[in-house]
Order: sequence, then C-alpha cells, then structure tokens
Amino acid sequence: MIQTIVLKNRPKGKPSVSDFEFVNETAEMTLKDQDLLLEPLYVSVDPYLRGRMSDSKSYIPPFELNKPISSGVIAKVIASKNANFQEGDVVSGLLDWKTKQISNGDGLIKVDPDKAPLSAYLGLLGMTGLTAYLGLTEIGKPKAGETLVVSGAAGAVGSVVGQIGKLLGLRVIGLAGTDEKIDMLISKFGFDAGINYKTSSDIQADIAKAAPKGVDIYFDNVGGPISDAVLFNINTFARMVICGAISVYNATEVPKGVSVQPFLVKNSALMQGFIVSNYAQKFPEAMQTLAMWLSEGKLTYTETVVNGFENIPRAFIDLFDGKNKGKMIVKL
Amino acid sequence: MIQTIVLKNRPKGKPSVSDFEFVNETAEMTLKDQDLLLEPLYVSVDPYLRGRMSDSKSYIPPFELNKPISSGVIAKVIASKNANFQEGDVVSGLLDWKTKQISNGDGLIKVDPDKAPLSAYLGLLGMTGLTAYLGLTEIGKPKAGETLVVSGAAGAVGSVVGQIGKLLGLRVIGLAGTDEKIDMLISKFGFDAGINYKTSSDIQADIAKAAPKGVDIYFDNVGGPISDAVLFNINTFARMVICGAISVYNATEVPKGVSVQPFLVKNSALMQGFIVSNYAQKFPEAMQTLAMWLSEGKLTYTETVVNGFENIPRAFIDLFDGKNKGKMIVKL
Repeated sequence: MIQTIVLKNRPKGKPSVSDFEFVNETAEMTLKDQDLLLEPLYVSVDPYLRGRMSDSKSYIPPFELNKPISSGVIAKVIASKNANFQEGDVVSGLLDWKTKQISNGDGLIKVDPDKAPLSAYLGLLGMTGLTAYLGLTEIGKPKAGETLVVSGAAGAVGSVVGQIGKLLGLRVIGLAGTDEKIDMLISKFGFDAGINYKTSSDIQADIAKAAPKGVDIYFDNVGGPISDAVLFNINTFARMVICGAISVYNATEVPKGVSVQPFLVKNSALMQGFIVSNYAQKFPEAMQTLAMWLSEGKLTYTETVVNGFENIPRAFIDLFDGKNKGKMIVKL
Repeated sequence: MIQTIVLKNRPKGKPSVSDFEFVNETAEMTLKDQDLLLEPLYVSVDPYLRGRMSDSKSYIPPFELNKPISSGVIAKVIASKNANFQEGDVVSGLLDWKTKQISNGDGLIKVDPDKAPLSAYLGLLGMTGLTAYLGLTEIGKPKAGETLVVSGAAGAVGSVVGQIGKLLGLRVIGLAGTDEKIDMLISKFGFDAGINYKTSSDIQADIAKAAPKGVDIYFDNVGGPISDAVLFNINTFARMVICGAISVYNATEVPKGVSVQPFLVKNSALMQGFIVSNYAQKFPEAMQTLAMWLSEGKLTYTETVVNGFENIPRAFIDLFDGKNKGKMIVKL
C-alpha cells in the first residue's frame, strides 16, 4: 500500500493539519521503459511551499487540490528500467509526498552518500545552499569590509548566508526570534552580532548599534516589521536581497508596512526579489564552491530532523512558528 | 542691491511661503582672479529640493538655515576674470537663488542659445532629460514591445520618460491628476493611454485594463497609493525605477503602504532608487541622444513658466499641488 499526502484545502492564513489529507493507493506500480521506482529517504519542507498552496499567480504554479504535494526529496532507487540509474542509487529531485513513486528520471540528480550526509543534499548542497550563495553574490554583490544583515538568520538559508558572508569578509548581523538561536548564530555560525527581534524593545536602534557603519547588504527572509527596521539603517547603494517573506506568507489581507520608495531614492538603494531557479546556469559553479567550503570545514549547518512520513504536514506548519533551527527535514 | 532667498524654517509638511525669506545685501561684489559675475535668467524649481529642506540624511546635504537655497539655474555672465568664460556667455549650473552672484566657474557649463531655447537646458537638455533618459535606460532596461507605466506622467521628468519609451518601442501608460493632463499625455506626448488617478474609482483595475500584458517597467515619480496599485500589475522580472516620491515628501510621519517584498519575491522583480548624479559618466552620451531627438522633432516638452524672482518660493510650493505641466521654471 502506498500513502500520498494531498492538498485538501487551500489554507486560510496559517496552514493546519486539516488542510492535508493522507490517501491510500492500492494500484499496482508498473515500470515502463525509462522508469524508476523510488522510495523517499528525506523530505524537505520549506516556507516557499506555502505560496504554492494558494491559488494565486506566482513564479511556480499552485498545487492542485486533491493532488500530491511535492518538494525537494532524497530518494533511493529500488527498481530501474532507466540506463542512467541503477537499483541502490540515491537521487535528489522535486518529488511527491508519497511513500513510493515512479519517475522517468527527468530532473533527478544522483548524489554521493560518501561525500556528505544524504540530508545535506537538501540543505547546504541543495537548494538551500544555492539560494544562500547565489542570492548573496548575485544580488548582494558583497565587498569585503561591508556590513550584512540577515533576517531569519537561524533558518536554513539564513544560517548559510551569514557563514558565506563571513567567508567573504563581511561584518554579519543576524536577526532571530529566541536567545538560543542568537547564541547559535554567534557561537556556531560565526556571526558578529545577533538581535532577538522578539525581545528587542527597539529593533531599529539595536541594528544601528550592531552596524555602526550602516547596512550595505540586507538578506531578507522574513519581510514585515523587521525589514522595515532595517530600512532606517541602510547605506547609500545598499542592496536588499528579497529571498522570502515568511512573516506575511500566511497573511489573509494585503500586508502593509513602511513605504520603501523614499528610502530607495534617498540611498540609491536596490531591492530585488530572488528566486534561485532563475540562476540555474550558475548552479554548477556554486555547488563546487559550497562543496569545497564544506569539505574544508569552513561551512557548517544545522538540521531539525522530524521522523516519519505522517509528520510531514506538522513539520511544514512548525516552520511558521520558528520551531526549526536550520533546515527542517523529515526522515522516513 | 542684491536679493537672496534663504531658508528661514525647515518646513513641517508642505512648505509655505513663510519658510522662505528674502534678504537684501548691499555689500560690494568684487571679482577675484578666476571669478565670474552671474545674473540668473531662469531658475529651476524641483520636487527633490524639498528633501534638502529637511535636516535628514540623504544623497545631498541639507540646505542650511538662513543660507541661500540653490537649484539648477541658467545665468548670463556679466563680468569675467576667468579665461574660460566671457561676458555675454550663458551658463548652466547649480546656483543660488540670488539676483546676482559670484562663481569661480566650477561646475558651470556653457550653453548655446542658438541650438535650443535657454530654458530647455533646465529641462529636456538638462537634469530633467538626463534623469528621464538614464533612469529609464539604466534601471528600466527597456526592450521593444514591453509595457511602461509612468507616474507623475505630466510632470517634467514623466512627460519625457513617456516619449522616450515610445521612441524605444514600448507601450506607454501615464498616470496624472487632471483630465487636461491626460489629454496632453496622449495628444501631445504620444502616450498610448492615461489614467486620472484622482477620478479613477479603481486605479489597480484601470492599470490592468490599460496594460493587458502586465507592467514590465514602472517609472515612479510619486510613490504612495498610486505605486501600490501598480505593484498588483507587475510582470515577472519587472523593473521599478524609483525616481521620486513627491506624494510623501511633505509627510510628517513615516509613510506606510503595501509591503512590496512579497511582490518582489513572487515576480523576481527589482526596485531601485535612481539619482541622476550617480550616472555622471553617461551624461555626454545621453545629452547627445536627447539633443539629436530634439533636433529631429522626436521629442517635445512643456514648461510652466512663472515670472519674477519674488515668485520662486510660490512656484516651488505649487509643484506639490500639481499646478505645473511639464517643467516648472521661473523666468527672471
């Protein structure tokens, strides 16, 4: 019997477990020529999936109701009629939330279990690492000595952005929502400073204090009032990488905030939305750099691993309460 | 006797005539070596000057209290001890609001009264034209067939942006605040469509109707709710040139609006503040193109000319009520 997680309702506001449904399939799985049979080992849950659960125009089409949800998955090949893949291979790709599935191999990449732990291919050596590296370098255009602020800094992308910032010679300040996360930013990831936005009485002033030379680059994962506070501290020619806006993904009305335009004019500053898939031609180079840094011990990562297929929806929902440190992964 | 207009108070909200003071000077003006004596012929009043009247960090330092205000001025050389300028020459430069003044010639450009009307050197062939051309080309990066929306479209910069947009093969939609201005956009400047934002019952829907293929480039002179309405209509990879925010220059509290970040992420879109002086190395090439188009009759312009030195403050204030069509100029 095969289990599938489908989207039952389009969430209103924050998703709840009742928006998902577990469906049992009993149909025989028959491989055609070129097909692989896959069994997932690790499933990635990511904030951006929330966007695909709404029925609105975006950079990727919305999930269909009563159809399986898909995300980044590491899977084992358990049968193959495809010459490029053998039984026992481990692959990474965009796959369904399903206990077994057939693929024709398109878009799958073989990963090497000896080079890095398998889950790293969903994180540092996957979309997470690529997002951090390419967002920071392609839009942030960092120059040694500059100051970088990262929001959602203890999250999967944010913690890598900060480390890469340090490797590139930046002063790095992270924003996160618990003191434990702030400690981790500094002690584990080497950030220069951290601000707990939940306990800060004046985020704008705390950023000013942590960034005495002003903010040159802002890597934004959250949007909302935190990002407004950063605006008041930007330097001339500041670059703001808008990678995510988790603070408003669940908003049921159009979110409001400080008007950014006057800040952009005053500072000749740039704000640009970043979607990693637009930079696919840079993936090989970026992967090489990330793998090198990882093997040299210059990059580290944190995962929050949840066990069991049945807990995928819960793990996804917990992202919006900041329950993860680093990459949130479900192990099957 | 020489008259000077000084900044008496930093305006709170919209400037009023009482924020300015006319001061008489009786001191003798003595030319040192390299000096010129200048008499202004035309004075430019521009929205950006409002920013310099506040005591806040910006791309140019604020005006000092009780010191002369300065802006773009066309002046006649009435005496010269500088080998580069002769009596009778006409020059353009950033000069004080003063009926006579001494300059050492730094930053002054000689202009040719035979090539274009003198006031054009404050407009189409001055900062206005350069702002329109370089903002649109350097940040907007137009491609023929795309759709351009211009706010403040009947203003000095906006009316030139729209015309250049047409010359570059774009569909051009202008936003302005009177039906008369909308008529002018279409009949005089060749815009494809215009929207009166004051009488529109749904700006967002009207933009959607005028831009059936969505908005690729937004040239923003105004900020505020008009710009929010544009956001809902942008295409993937849209570029938003933030050139001004006249709608909020007089705001006494930090202006709020729709959070732009989710729109930027969804559409991989860019917003960038544009200050023409950052592109000084491109001025000669841009000037050449603008002068060519003007001489070929491909560009036209509108001026609102106010007479008399004593009316400079009033003309400046009238900008914020949209009383100008095209470039606002004071003739002395």
